[in-house]
Amino acid sequence: MHRMKKFALIVAGGHGVRMDAEMPKQFLEVAGKPILMHTIGCFYNYDPETELIVVLPGLQIKTWGNLCSRYSLNIAHKVCPGGEKRFFSVKNGLSEINDDGIVFIHDGVRPLVSAETLDRCYNTTIQKGNAIPVVPVTESLRKMEAGKNYAVDRSHYFLVQTPQTFIVNEIKKAYGQEYSPYFTDDASVLEATGATINIVDGNRENFKITYPHDLNFAASLLGKV
Amino acid sequence: MHRMKKFALIVAGGHGVRMDAEMPKQFLEVAGKPILMHTIGCFYNYDPETELIVVLPGLQIKTWGNLCSRYSLNIAHKVCPGGEKRFFSVKNGLSEINDDGIVFIHDGVRPLVSAETLDRCYNTTIQKGNAIPVVPVTESLRKMEAGKNYAVDRSHYFLVQTPQTFIVNEIKKAYGQEYSPYFTDDASVLEATGATINIVDGNRENFKITYPHDLNFAASLLGKV
Repeated sequence: MHRMKKFALIVAGGHGVRMDAEMPKQFLEVAGKPILMHTIGCFYNYDPETELIVVLPGLQIKTWGNLCSRYSLNIAHKVCPGGEKRFFSVKNGLSEINDDGIVFIHDGVRPLVSAETLDRCYNTTIQKGNAIPVVPVTESLRKMEAGKNYAVDRSHYFLVQTPQTFIVNEIKKAYGQEYSPYFTDDASVLEATGATINIVDGNRENFKITYPHDLNFAASLLGKV
Repeated sequence: MHRMKKFALIVAGGHGVRMDAEMPKQFLEVAGKPILMHTIGCFYNYDPETELIVVLPGLQIKTWGNLCSRYSLNIAHKVCPGGEKRFFSVKNGLSEINDDGIVFIHDGVRPLVSAETLDRCYNTTIQKGNAIPVVPVTESLRKMEAGKNYAVDRSHYFLVQTPQTFIVNEIKKAYGQEYSPYFTDDASVLEATGATINIVDGNRENFKITYPHDLNFAASLLGKV
């Protein structure tokens, strides 16, 4: 297995409308620093040579710079403005990558991805061309179809986390497609080119901070790391 | 709309093998008392006249009695031994109910069900015969079929919580069926008799305590209640 250069594209484009907070959620302080700094740290700690690109809403780039000074963040990273939808934010971020290699595309508000998950994503991408981390569905699952709902076998379903991981040149090419509302994540963009997506085990704590009470949960987990 | 007598069948049959704890998880203390006492309190606070039946593994009934003394629990409830699988635990619990009415069948380790969720379940059961609380899927979802996986539209799916809520005589009759491994929850048991299941909004915090880190999450939420 050969090694390839690593890039992490951390997408922090959200305005956090579900958080009831004025500060975008990726900037909220949890366990001593903004969530986004914890997330950046996951990749830096995994491999300090990973090239980091952070995609932020244009209007928040200055605030982020101030936070980096205030918290003395000393992990080098590029900052790039996002687009109106996640698709365009990722596309902008990818345009900042000029080498081939492997790119982790990760949600800025998932500060609890483990080194083991990153390693599984990296190794499977080297071997098979892409990888997405998933966890099993632990609740009963129902499907709504034509106004009726029925139980489905949850063991056939997986919840998808990030980083969704790709060969740089392949995912760049996939993002050359026209935007479609069916692109719910990066894997679905690559899938639309005919690729088969490979799943690997994620880690259960790698959840997406979405609701206000998620902050307590994240704090209790990050406090232990 | 007429009123009907309320029963809550709280199923706490689990041994907590995923919790790395010697004490079964429903007995672990969170925010000042065992999880199961918080759960019982949800129903008592919603309507103190609700008749409560708690299903416990036979070997834990004595421990539970000691906990009730130690914590001075003064909410009257019947205790009934569980079976080898959830299906048989629920069936045993239902056999303790001798009147008709409405029964909430609830997981003992969901101590955060809201009064609003209970009310939606009750009202919809009065009107339509049954109700289950659901929440939307917030992560991307993939399905595995014939060795391939593909993205599915998560907006067609729901995660199912409890209490699953029924007319006593109807769910008793449904539990007269022979056990099937396809019975993943109470709704699927009723559904097998030909009934249509009604969904109502659950509340996001009403999650099932399953993994060790869920305890921190639950503590932070229960601490605020």
